[in-house]
Amino acid sequence: MTKQTAEQSVNTQLNGLDTHALGQTVDALKRDKTLARFEFRASNRWIGGAENRSTIQGFFGAGAEDTSRKVPFRFTSGEPPVLLGKNEGANPVEFLLHALAGCVTTTTVLHAAARGIRIDSIATELTGDIDLQGLLDLDASVPAGYRQITMKMDIKADCSDAALDELLQFAHGHSPVCNTVCHPVPVVIERVRPG
Amino acid sequence: MTKQTAEQSVNTQLNGLDTHALGQTVDALKRDKTLARFEFRASNRWIGGAENRSTIQGFFGAGAEDTSRKVPFRFTSGEPPVLLGKNEGANPVEFLLHALAGCVTTTTVLHAAARGIRIDSIATELTGDIDLQGLLDLDASVPAGYRQITMKMDIKADCSDAALDELLQFAHGHSPVCNTVCHPVPVVIERVRPG
Repeated sequence: MTKQTAEQSVNTQLNGLDTHALGQTVDALKRDKTLARFEFRASNRWIGGAENRSTIQGFFGAGAEDTSRKVPFRFTSGEPPVLLGKNEGANPVEFLLHALAGCVTTTTVLHAAARGIRIDSIATELTGDIDLQGLLDLDASVPAGYRQITMKMDIKADCSDAALDELLQFAHGHSPVCNTVCHPVPVVIERVRPG
Repeated sequence: MTKQTAEQSVNTQLNGLDTHALGQTVDALKRDKTLARFEFRASNRWIGGAENRSTIQGFFGAGAEDTSRKVPFRFTSGEPPVLLGKNEGANPVEFLLHALAGCVTTTTVLHAAARGIRIDSIATELTGDIDLQGLLDLDASVPAGYRQITMKMDIKADCSDAALDELLQFAHGHSPVCNTVCHPVPVVIERVRPG
């Protein structure tokens, strides 16, 4: 009995994810859709010049305030000298590429696990094209954001090439960061009034 | 003469940015628009489960390959336990909030410097609403990305409230990450074929 239970426990792990817990999460969300509502947060403070820092810790999700992080994550943004900084950190548009890479990768691994596909490795190279005439307000016809982002994904798994192509297409359509980039998402900036 | 030169040098700094260098950059881009074309890059590798890591170092811009970073920046994405991870790092949608905060802040500081506005402080709280039914493919009508991101910016500077409001509105319109989020930007995923 004990041995069988241990084997069952091993079998619920695929791609480093607990597929039993994943199934429980999906079942819970089907019963109560409000559990799927999450609010993520960050606090940012300007240090000087091109340097600023974010603190990330709490969030709301699955119907409760998360308390699992005992210490916050901290990240520093900067700029290279050619963009008037001192390489205090990666710059914001580079952090966006990291966010995109991480999200598409995790979405791929998650849905592979749900389909019973075992992933061996994923390595991704990202490039993003941007024309800084937009940021610098030199040409109103030039978009300030990325023109396009390309991800070259080298993925090895125990399934056919056709299944891998379909999996990546599915991840493109279901990754939260990819969808935030591909579709227009409103950003509301409110200035805090003194007093 | 030496003293005067030193004073002039001090006077070209505003908000920690070298406004003389900023002016030179803008003049150079006006003469040759191709200098404004930048390509930013990231390499990402899946570690296991919800964990993956990015390496960020080189980029192309201002007509040349940048070599200013002697060591790469590295960032780890993870997920909290409620999302099947072990808090290996902030999660990708949180990194997106950091990228957005950093970009709007830097864009604000840059254009304030260009206008002669001295910034004393900026502190920003970000919240992003997301419904994970999209990621989990439980309801095709639910977007996978953020529904909306709100930034509450507390900014102190030596100008009027009206000038601050206009500055933040301008930053919203010219921040590269804000524009990548607010407008649809294509993400192309190409699978690397073996051999």
